[in-house]
Amino acid sequence: MQRYFVENQLTVGTAFALDATVSKHWLQVLRAEPGAQAEFVDATEHVFLGELLADERVQVIEELAVNVELPVHVTILSGLPKQDKAEWIVQKATEMGAFDIAFFGADWSVAKWQPNKVAKKLARLQKIAQGASEQSHRTHVPTVRFFNTLKQAVAEVETDHLVVAYEEAAKQGEQANLVQLMNRTQPGDRLTAVFGPEGGISPAEMTLLTERSATVAGLGPRILRTETAPLYFLAAVSTLLELS
Amino acid sequence: MQRYFVENQLTVGTAFALDATVSKHWLQVLRAEPGAQAEFVDATEHVFLGELLADERVQVIEELAVNVELPVHVTILSGLPKQDKAEWIVQKATEMGAFDIAFFGADWSVAKWQPNKVAKKLARLQKIAQGASEQSHRTHVPTVRFFNTLKQAVAEVETDHLVVAYEEAAKQGEQANLVQLMNRTQPGDRLTAVFGPEGGISPAEMTLLTERSATVAGLGPRILRTETAPLYFLAAVSTLLELS
Repeated sequence: MQRYFVENQLTVGTAFALDATVSKHWLQVLRAEPGAQAEFVDATEHVFLGELLADERVQVIEELAVNVELPVHVTILSGLPKQDKAEWIVQKATEMGAFDIAFFGADWSVAKWQPNKVAKKLARLQKIAQGASEQSHRTHVPTVRFFNTLKQAVAEVETDHLVVAYEEAAKQGEQANLVQLMNRTQPGDRLTAVFGPEGGISPAEMTLLTERSATVAGLGPRILRTETAPLYFLAAVSTLLELS
Repeated sequence: MQRYFVENQLTVGTAFALDATVSKHWLQVLRAEPGAQAEFVDATEHVFLGELLADERVQVIEELAVNVELPVHVTILSGLPKQDKAEWIVQKATEMGAFDIAFFGADWSVAKWQPNKVAKKLARLQKIAQGASEQSHRTHVPTVRFFNTLKQAVAEVETDHLVVAYEEAAKQGEQANLVQLMNRTQPGDRLTAVFGPEGGISPAEMTLLTERSATVAGLGPRILRTETAPLYFLAAVSTLLELS
């Protein structure tokens, strides 16, 4: 069933008007007719079943109690990657349950975002996050942010647990820290996972993180690309906390 | 350090000639000079340290005992996806340790491969698998295959465990079967994981699989795209079998 995010707060038993974007997709592209139903996620991240009325408003039938969100809030904090990998990361990390996503200008980032272009790039990535959330039937849409440096990112992102996926740790056979970290988390905890760009994380950035007691984790023995590592991390979190 | 796959069998203390592809990359693109070292994976999947000689042959210095392969052999068997997602799947699944990768013409595949184009497409995907193996520092290069139907694929792929990632199972909250399956595996076991194309797996295909005692597994509560699900699966296998 189609799922749409709406900006207002919905109440069972009332009707609301669709915004232009949803109306265009549901009524024109999908040719929905009165009686057609869809899921609507409102501003409070609750999911409702809605039915299209003859006047093109939607009747809120009932609330659907479906929670597909990860039990911990994972912020993916990635060194800015090249080309359109940022789009790929946003889409896939959203599919896999990231709470929010931020990019930072890493010491060894080849890609750079000009200050006057950041807002436009973030707006595009935000649209991608919303589309991916809808397709994944999530109730939360990750916010996408950008920080000029890792130092700024770490100063501004509040978190309960800081972890860095470090290639060198993987090469040295580190494989226990991620599991031990997940064993220490409580539902609702905020986890910030840091990933380097193509060139990796610099020594100065590692020092910044370890000074803040970051967990240094290997993600299995294979070297993963900058756009793949966050997906391994999210799948690992899901495997350890959601599957049993 | 660079890693290259070579077709011959290497022996410590001997020297060998580079093939044209490796020679071009190491000597011309990277401008390696005598004394430069690289890792070479030979036909038996052993890794050796090699040093470039003045005559452009390579002296095999020592064997490196590094195993980065998953303890079970995972075949990713995916319904043929649209556009260049097959390339993404091959690259990322190889990064994440797939033993081999096969595509099949699913009942609900939108994409189709014309018989006279299959060989060319597979050759291209095979190159992608090799490049991804090199970058991930793996010793095994996945073979990429194509089957016209799931029925043919299941008849030809020998396996110890058959599992299907089924979207409907995820929606119904199934989350124990994958973990239970991994608890039953032994090192060296062959696992074949089936994924549907964008449209999903058809009822007839599900019947085919369940008749062969396939484990039906949910991959967490979020709906994953056809190109993302295999990556979740491989990360989950790694998390359950390699991290501790």
